[in-house]
Amino acid sequence: MAEQAPDATGAAVLLGTLADAGVTACFANPGTSEMHLVAALDGEPRMRAVLTLFEGVATGAADGYARMADRPAATLLHLGPGLANGTANLHNARRAGTPVVNVVGDHARDHKPLDAPLESDVDSLAGVVSARVHRTTDPERLGPDVADAVAAACGPPPAISTLLVPADVAWGPGYARGVPRPVSPLGRGALDADGLESAAKALWSGERCTLLIGGTGLRAAGLRAAQRIAAATGTALLAECFPTRTERGAGLPDVPRLAYPGDVAREQLAGTAHLVLVGAHSPVTFFGYPGRSGDLVPEGCTVHRVAETGAAGEIALLALADLVAADTPDPTVATAARPELPTGALTAPLAAAVVGALLPEGAIVVDESLTSGTGLPQATAGAPRHDWLTLTGGAIGFGMPAAIGAAVACPDRPVWSLQADGSAMYTVQALWTQAREGLDVTTVLYDNGAYAILRGELLGVGATLAEDSPARSLLDLGSPRLDFAAIGAGLGVPTTVATTAEELADGLRRATAEPGPHLVVARVPPLVP
Amino acid sequence: MAEQAPDATGAAVLLGTLADAGVTACFANPGTSEMHLVAALDGEPRMRAVLTLFEGVATGAADGYARMADRPAATLLHLGPGLANGTANLHNARRAGTPVVNVVGDHARDHKPLDAPLESDVDSLAGVVSARVHRTTDPERLGPDVADAVAAACGPPPAISTLLVPADVAWGPGYARGVPRPVSPLGRGALDADGLESAAKALWSGERCTLLIGGTGLRAAGLRAAQRIAAATGTALLAECFPTRTERGAGLPDVPRLAYPGDVAREQLAGTAHLVLVGAHSPVTFFGYPGRSGDLVPEGCTVHRVAETGAAGEIALLALADLVAADTPDPTVATAARPELPTGALTAPLAAAVVGALLPEGAIVVDESLTSGTGLPQATAGAPRHDWLTLTGGAIGFGMPAAIGAAVACPDRPVWSLQADGSAMYTVQALWTQAREGLDVTTVLYDNGAYAILRGELLGVGATLAEDSPARSLLDLGSPRLDFAAIGAGLGVPTTVATTAEELADGLRRATAEPGPHLVVARVPPLVP
Repeated sequence: MAEQAPDATGAAVLLGTLADAGVTACFANPGTSEMHLVAALDGEPRMRAVLTLFEGVATGAADGYARMADRPAATLLHLGPGLANGTANLHNARRAGTPVVNVVGDHARDHKPLDAPLESDVDSLAGVVSARVHRTTDPERLGPDVADAVAAACGPPPAISTLLVPADVAWGPGYARGVPRPVSPLGRGALDADGLESAAKALWSGERCTLLIGGTGLRAAGLRAAQRIAAATGTALLAECFPTRTERGAGLPDVPRLAYPGDVAREQLAGTAHLVLVGAHSPVTFFGYPGRSGDLVPEGCTVHRVAETGAAGEIALLALADLVAADTPDPTVATAARPELPTGALTAPLAAAVVGALLPEGAIVVDESLTSGTGLPQATAGAPRHDWLTLTGGAIGFGMPAAIGAAVACPDRPVWSLQADGSAMYTVQALWTQAREGLDVTTVLYDNGAYAILRGELLGVGATLAEDSPARSLLDLGSPRLDFAAIGAGLGVPTTVATTAEELADGLRRATAEPGPHLVVARVPPLVP
Repeated sequence: MAEQAPDATGAAVLLGTLADAGVTACFANPGTSEMHLVAALDGEPRMRAVLTLFEGVATGAADGYARMADRPAATLLHLGPGLANGTANLHNARRAGTPVVNVVGDHARDHKPLDAPLESDVDSLAGVVSARVHRTTDPERLGPDVADAVAAACGPPPAISTLLVPADVAWGPGYARGVPRPVSPLGRGALDADGLESAAKALWSGERCTLLIGGTGLRAAGLRAAQRIAAATGTALLAECFPTRTERGAGLPDVPRLAYPGDVAREQLAGTAHLVLVGAHSPVTFFGYPGRSGDLVPEGCTVHRVAETGAAGEIALLALADLVAADTPDPTVATAARPELPTGALTAPLAAAVVGALLPEGAIVVDESLTSGTGLPQATAGAPRHDWLTLTGGAIGFGMPAAIGAAVACPDRPVWSLQADGSAMYTVQALWTQAREGLDVTTVLYDNGAYAILRGELLGVGATLAEDSPARSLLDLGSPRLDFAAIGAGLGVPTTVATTAEELADGLRRATAEPGPHLVVARVPPLVP
């Protein structure tokens, strides 16, 4: 902890307490009510402030940062509307079990009752996504309030913690900093002792078991433990459909993910007598569909919950392995095996092969490729070690912001951002921050000219549209066709376009060789025509 | 009202009831839970569905539409995250007193308890901006629920009304449509009879009075009535700082707006003994500043409230004029007078002169020019008749979406969208919808490379930053410089760049002569360097 210097303003107390507590990155889109917090940044060199052009970029970056750093970043947001703009990506962070400390500037205390134009019910808004919302009303409590806010974000379990800071508390005199809370050595959340015991019994029962793994259970130690459990007991292993962070690649067990289509997921789980949830929610389909249950637990299957949260997944697997696989040797793992570099007109499966062939050692993959991601898991399973982050909450516009956060958290690792086109347009402003900060982010933008996933969903929900239906155009991005090369260049990122597998490979090689961000627009036909 | 055909699905009932009630525009960013509503569009030709790439564009468009059409549009949004993305512009609509009907698709009723990834507390979220939130749980009630939702939006007073529609209610069988409610002939909200009487007494007292006019009081009839009141009683006239919609130009009274800087606003109100609020809130500064009160009502001034809401402003002025100016002849009005077309290197004031010189007859101006708008009110006061829409709630990213809505509401009128650069980047996706729909929107994008307004606010709140301060870079958009010409072209809008007054004039003439949207990037130095 830094020496407690007398802080001139509340703003300095806030930043100093954040940094003392280990929060050293702040993704910001400030306004007038945050100006003193901006001014105080020069006095806190431990804090890296990253400007974004839109709050959804700031919150998505905070999510990506915490997934890789295992500690929270702060966001700096402007009153209710700023928080509202960041709420969709906070929803994703909530579903990821990611710690985030939102610092939301609000009107000065004597200004708030005047119902000025920017006044809104920011407290209720914050409650929609936050495990804890606190408003500092006593300037002397600001330091402790900040320490409490960080502690609430760190958990266990990790969560979103929102601190509302009136402008006059920030510009007023500084009092004592808050004292950082020690982070629990267990740190990642509690186990369910009864669940552990019943799961162990199930695994030894001889009946068909499936371990559904989520959260930190998909880190290296958890995966190795899971593989040992499988070797000892014959249980099947599945990862949740949209994991927060998976460590994978050559040298690590490759656990298949539960499929998005309900029919495929039901097949994966068919015959399971005991479903053991380790840091994963009980499996459900993403949406409800007419005439089909959304609950994916097979009829008659017993569900065992070992970890109460995703954050406890790794510890739970280690504990379970100790119980049922203490003498089992190291597991088999994915061997190094890359696809051949393909050639010819680009398609989503060919693009997956190119990514698999070229993914660099230590890469962080942020995957919002949606329908264009077909084949990616298989093509990359034997690539060098890497991390894989997915869209946990379904609120699109996560990928490019999260890539910012991952790159800030891990400046020495390359970040590959695999991004669908329709989703890209939610937070395309993220490219500018990647350029501004010189981040080593390579974006593959799958340009298929459609909301292809919705074409599939339209069939899934049993709705039909004729080929020439005017309403069908609402699933179409082709008129006018978005020119992502121009958009990327306009936002300051060097951009190339690939229409063949060779061009995609060239673009990715160049992006890997040169510092800073790159955008490779991968023109692919939509999977659902 | 259309004949009640048997509607096959709930989705068809919903669209049919909306159209029966006069809601014939829908700004949409649908997802899986809204697919049946999309499919039903082909069966309701009265409904114009406009696709947006981001929900903030949809909600801002609905605001702009209703300001011009005086009836609500619908939005079609995807669960909690979709509504969250639209919330900032709904905040602006709430402050504008605009009617909006949000149709938010939600999980099917049996899917909602499963806590699927996209599940969130959408009801609480909707409550932050909505006067009424309703969830249809009984499919037979869908039609009446839709009619109720539209009625709540129409008011009086006009407001935001949010209807949450479970996916299975939309895909399930259709029952009876709702019966549209007659819109009250007064329509625009109630008067305060006591306020009217006390205001009339004040106006005849001989003491110094100021009428602060907002809402519909700034339509032509209200302005003429206000001018008659001023002629009869000597009262000063002021418009609120950020009006929803002002009718102005040659032939109409030009009422100055309350200034944004508190010091200037205080001078405008100094010496006022009676402040008469007609559809306007009691005046406050936008933000609180150290050592200064945010309340702009002068010490000892008596406040009279004539209209309870902005929507009643016009009726209130007519009633007040009947009381105090029954025999006063027609008022003096702004005469037709345009600035000369200037020449030379472009600055914000020169750009204002170019706009004033070329603004076409019947234009709708959407003004989010912020600091670059210096001089616009004066330069355009004598232009041909036009409407002027402003950023009522301070949540930036309003302008380009609202321009979409205004153009859809008034397809025969040119829309000029005067847009600051930092704010533009919140909802820049709007340009694509302008191109897709072929809307006659001319955007002047003031590119000054900075959050210039924040540089001013930094001084205002008494914070200081050295010229070479790292934190100062958080107010800077110059590294890398946003290339709006590339961004505009990438989004499908024909784009030119103007660095001189002549080039701006050329760009605006071309935009006026050709159909469809145009973007003119106006490079200007920041007002606050």
